Amino acid sequence: MKLLGHSIAPNARRVSIYLLEKGIALDAYHVDIMQGAALTKNFDNMNPFHQVPVLLFDDGSVITESVAICRYFEEMHPIKPLFGQTARERAHVEMWQRRAELHVFNMVAQVFRHLHPAMEQLEVPQVPHWAEACRQKLSQALPIFDRQLQENTFLAGDRLTICDITLGCALEFSKLARVEIPANYENLHAYWQRVQQRRSFSEKLKLLQWEDEAALQQAQTA
Amino acid sequence: MKLLGHSIAPNARRVSIYLLEKGIALDAYHVDIMQGAALTKNFDNMNPFHQVPVLLFDDGSVITESVAICRYFEEMHPIKPLFGQTARERAHVEMWQRRAELHVFNMVAQVFRHLHPAMEQLEVPQVPHWAEACRQKLSQALPIFDRQLQENTFLAGDRLTICDITLGCALEFSKLARVEIPANYENLHAYWQRVQQRRSFSEKLKLLQWEDEAALQQAQTA
Repeated sequence: MKLLGHSIAPNARRVSIYLLEKGIALDAYHVDIMQGAALTKNFDNMNPFHQVPVLLFDDGSVITESVAICRYFEEMHPIKPLFGQTARERAHVEMWQRRAELHVFNMVAQVFRHLHPAMEQLEVPQVPHWAEACRQKLSQALPIFDRQLQENTFLAGDRLTICDITLGCALEFSKLARVEIPANYENLHAYWQRVQQRRSFSEKLKLLQWEDEAALQQAQTA
Repeated sequence: MKLLGHSIAPNARRVSIYLLEKGIALDAYHVDIMQGAALTKNFDNMNPFHQVPVLLFDDGSVITESVAICRYFEEMHPIKPLFGQTARERAHVEMWQRRAELHVFNMVAQVFRHLHPAMEQLEVPQVPHWAEACRQKLSQALPIFDRQLQENTFLAGDRLTICDITLGCALEFSKLARVEIPANYENLHAYWQRVQQRRSFSEKLKLLQWEDEAALQQAQTA
C-alpha cells in the first residue's frame, strides 16, 4: 500500500497529520501537482480528478478523497479514535468536520485558487470576485468557530479529532493563501497555538519523490 | 427526535430520501428557508449556519450536516446498509460520495445560488462568473461519472448507496437550477431514469410545517 500525497497541499496534509496522530507508518510520496505531475496519463488512470491524496493498494485499486482515506485507516486502526467513540459523538465530530471544511477550509482554498498567481495555470478561469465573496463568507463563519472554542479545548470537545485536523490545515494554509485571521478571535488563535505545537503538525511525514517511482515503473515495464 | 428539513432544498432531500430508503419514520418538518425561516433567533440557536437539515434531539442537542445525520441513522439502523458493508467498500462508497458532492452536487448548487433570481437575497453577492466557471467544471466531471456508470448499475457498484442519493439529488435539482445534463451522457441518463423511479425519490417524505411548530412552542412558553 502506498500513499500519494504532497508536502504542503492542504488535503494531502490532512492525511499526513492523521497518520502521524495515529502513529501509522506506510510508504508515502510527494506528487509535484504544481508542476502537473497529477495530469499525466499514468496518474489519470488512478484518479481522473487529478488530485492528491490517493491511497494505492497493492492490487492496483485506489481510494481517493482525504476523509475517505482517513476513515479507512480508522477502521483498520481503531486505537486512539479520531472520529469519535459513540454514535452520537461520531455524528457530532462529523458535523464539526463538515462545518470546518465548508466554512473555513474550502473558503481559504477558494481564495488561494482564485487569487494566487501560482494558481493561474491550474484554476482556469480564476474568478477574483468569487475569492472576495469567500473572504466575506469566511469572516462571517469565524465568530462561530471562535465561540465554539471558547467552551471547548478542541472543536468537538476535549480531545483532538478529525475536525481539528481539517480546521488546523485550513489555518496552516491561510498564510500561503494570504488570508488573515483577525487577532480579535482570541480563542481561535489560542487554539491554533495549541494545535500547531503538536508533533503531528510540526514534524512532517517523510515523503519520497513520486516521479522517481513513476520513472522506476516505466523502466521496469520497458 | 425531530428532523427539520425542506421539501425541495437538495441537502434536505438527501436526508429525506435516505430515510425513505431505510424505512425510518420520524417527525419531519418543512422549514421555509426561502422566506427566511432559518434566519430567526430560534433557529440560530439550533444552527448558527442557518441551514437545513437539522436533527433535533429531545434533550435539545442538535446534529446538522446531511451526511452526518444519515451516518448517525446508519449506526442506529444497520439493516440495509447504505454506506457499504466492509471497510474497503465503505471507503469506496465515501470516495464516490465525495466526488458526487464536490464535482456534481456542489457545482449544480453553485450555479443555482449565483445565477438564479430566487437567490438574490440569500446569496450575497451573487457572482455570475463563478456560476459559469462551475458549469464548466461540471461539464469536465460528467464524462467521468458517465464512464463509471457504464460499468456499474449504481455509482459504487451493484447496490444503491449514499453516493447515489447525493448524485440523484444533484440531478433532480439540476432542472430547478437550470443546468442541462447533455443527452450524450447516455449511461448517466439511463441511471437517472432508474434512480428517479425508486419510491424513495418519487414519493415524498411527509413534512409538517415548521412554523406551526415554532408558533406552538411560543404559545406553550408564553
